[in-house]
Amino acid sequence: MRAEIAEQPGVLGAAVERRGALAPVAGRVRGFAPRFALFAARGSSDHAALYAKYLTEVLLGLPSGLVSPSTTTLYGARPDLSGVLHVTVSQSGGSPDLVEATRSARERGALTVAVTNTPGSPLAEVAELSVDIGAGPELAVAATKTYSATLLALYLLVDAVRGGTGADVADLGELAASALAGSEGPVAEAVTRLRFVDRVVTTGRGYSSATAAEAALKLAETSYLSARSYSGADLLHGPVAAVGADTAVLAFTSAGRGGAAMEPVLAAVREAGADVVAVGSAAAEVPAAVRVGVPRTAEEVAPILEVLPAQRLALELSLARGGNPDRPRGLNKVTQTR
Amino acid sequence: MRAEIAEQPGVLGAAVERRGALAPVAGRVRGFAPRFALFAARGSSDHAALYAKYLTEVLLGLPSGLVSPSTTTLYGARPDLSGVLHVTVSQSGGSPDLVEATRSARERGALTVAVTNTPGSPLAEVAELSVDIGAGPELAVAATKTYSATLLALYLLVDAVRGGTGADVADLGELAASALAGSEGPVAEAVTRLRFVDRVVTTGRGYSSATAAEAALKLAETSYLSARSYSGADLLHGPVAAVGADTAVLAFTSAGRGGAAMEPVLAAVREAGADVVAVGSAAAEVPAAVRVGVPRTAEEVAPILEVLPAQRLALELSLARGGNPDRPRGLNKVTQTR
Repeated sequence: MRAEIAEQPGVLGAAVERRGALAPVAGRVRGFAPRFALFAARGSSDHAALYAKYLTEVLLGLPSGLVSPSTTTLYGARPDLSGVLHVTVSQSGGSPDLVEATRSARERGALTVAVTNTPGSPLAEVAELSVDIGAGPELAVAATKTYSATLLALYLLVDAVRGGTGADVADLGELAASALAGSEGPVAEAVTRLRFVDRVVTTGRGYSSATAAEAALKLAETSYLSARSYSGADLLHGPVAAVGADTAVLAFTSAGRGGAAMEPVLAAVREAGADVVAVGSAAAEVPAAVRVGVPRTAEEVAPILEVLPAQRLALELSLARGGNPDRPRGLNKVTQTR
Repeated sequence: MRAEIAEQPGVLGAAVERRGALAPVAGRVRGFAPRFALFAARGSSDHAALYAKYLTEVLLGLPSGLVSPSTTTLYGARPDLSGVLHVTVSQSGGSPDLVEATRSARERGALTVAVTNTPGSPLAEVAELSVDIGAGPELAVAATKTYSATLLALYLLVDAVRGGTGADVADLGELAASALAGSEGPVAEAVTRLRFVDRVVTTGRGYSSATAAEAALKLAETSYLSARSYSGADLLHGPVAAVGADTAVLAFTSAGRGGAAMEPVLAAVREAGADVVAVGSAAAEVPAAVRVGVPRTAEEVAPILEVLPAQRLALELSLARGGNPDRPRGLNKVTQTR
């Protein structure tokens, strides 16, 4: 896991270099002129899909939704999907339920795109179009480089569809290296503070909701923490009742509208007595016990950087608690869900 | 909270009696012939919306998604929503972000429906069509009767749109009374077992995914438990690593395809050493430490019954742990999110 976290600046930089390969896929999507986008994914890829949902609605002006594969695989639902862009996101490209949901979507008229790290996978075979994440083999059970590379692939695809030039991610490799280098000290400080924690809540708003969900999953997978994730808005809607002096809050706050909207959330959890670790390009500007800054980018690119310290925190916290983040109990790389 | 839990058989029975009032709304939806459905909600209502997403895809054959209100309220996204059915679900009908998201959806061509317990609320005013949940005033901060009544209103609306007769819920009031009466003993047994628990995972598949999410929220709100919810499929995809002998699993398993698909999930959490409390009409048939049965219904109706023991569990567990479920810390009834 440590080695794969460190590979990310190179993986991201190389993917930006290869962005021209997305042009044919983006051209097909534009020609199809979708009215609606649907994303199918599980686990970490589902958080990448949540990020892509925001990109699609805000940058492309297309309504979109996350697929519940089981409506197709369990209940046999066959909605008419003509005019629908159906994007399936899967590192392995091997989960039977996602392959089946994609095949079924294509039969029902959707333009199907597979976003996967495994060219030639069953998923890439069944989808009409395919995007290679290009992260290289991932051996660690907890996804790290495939997560950030998936976010970038989805961003580059959306950017290409809108006719962008990729300018906002031109330096992403260097920025990722800087984010990792700069996070070492603050993450060590956070690990010291959180070593004995039982209750963790992760939260963010807008694009960073996806980062909060992914951070909670990494902490659950590697440190066996019962970490819960909420969008900042949903947290205020009820679950803040479960936040108290015995709770650590990992709050993602990057420069932009999502970060700004975190202000009342941060005020509420501080009032509840929680220990707050703030992560993101706006972390330096908020009251928190530990602040983990990352370089500032366009707001829609921020999730690709702000997840890096969260991955490192999951790794180091697992080690500090006597765990082995590369051998989490009960976990396989490809889940055979139906 | 106790009084409002007990009111549910009456509330549900009365709502079934009044189902004819939905005919004009259903007629408008049929006439509109939507191509997609979008649901906007927060908190408990968001879990009701997840249930409605399954109903819409399976029973109406319409693709659907859950709205992230912040793409509109924070980022100003204005996707074209012509041909889209936009359903906003809110007990209070007062959350500014939901009112704004609904107003914006209507301006962009969606047919907007408000499902609310507050006729005349800002939400009901701004939506083109309105459905009254009719649960009566809810004083407890943790939503109970408005949740089950919202599920039923959404079911009755979908059933009316498909031209159904409501036959599958004709006896729902009596069944709810039976579910509550039958749960008293098993819930007391579960409270005894779970009194000192720190780690709770709730899980279900298909329609019951919504129940799992709602149960986790109730436990978080009333007992300050760090309860996490996963669809059974997502749980196997990674977070099962955080399940061990120190974990209680609240598993929803009702007769039907969703309950049947819980088999590998139950096997995995038992193998991990978790203490399993099974709830639902198929609970008697699965290996579990405690089984809380409810009457059998059509699978798509099961979430309305299976949530009742979960609400009672949240209430009784809070009391057993010295809490006051009617005065949860840090919680307000209407959240002013933007």
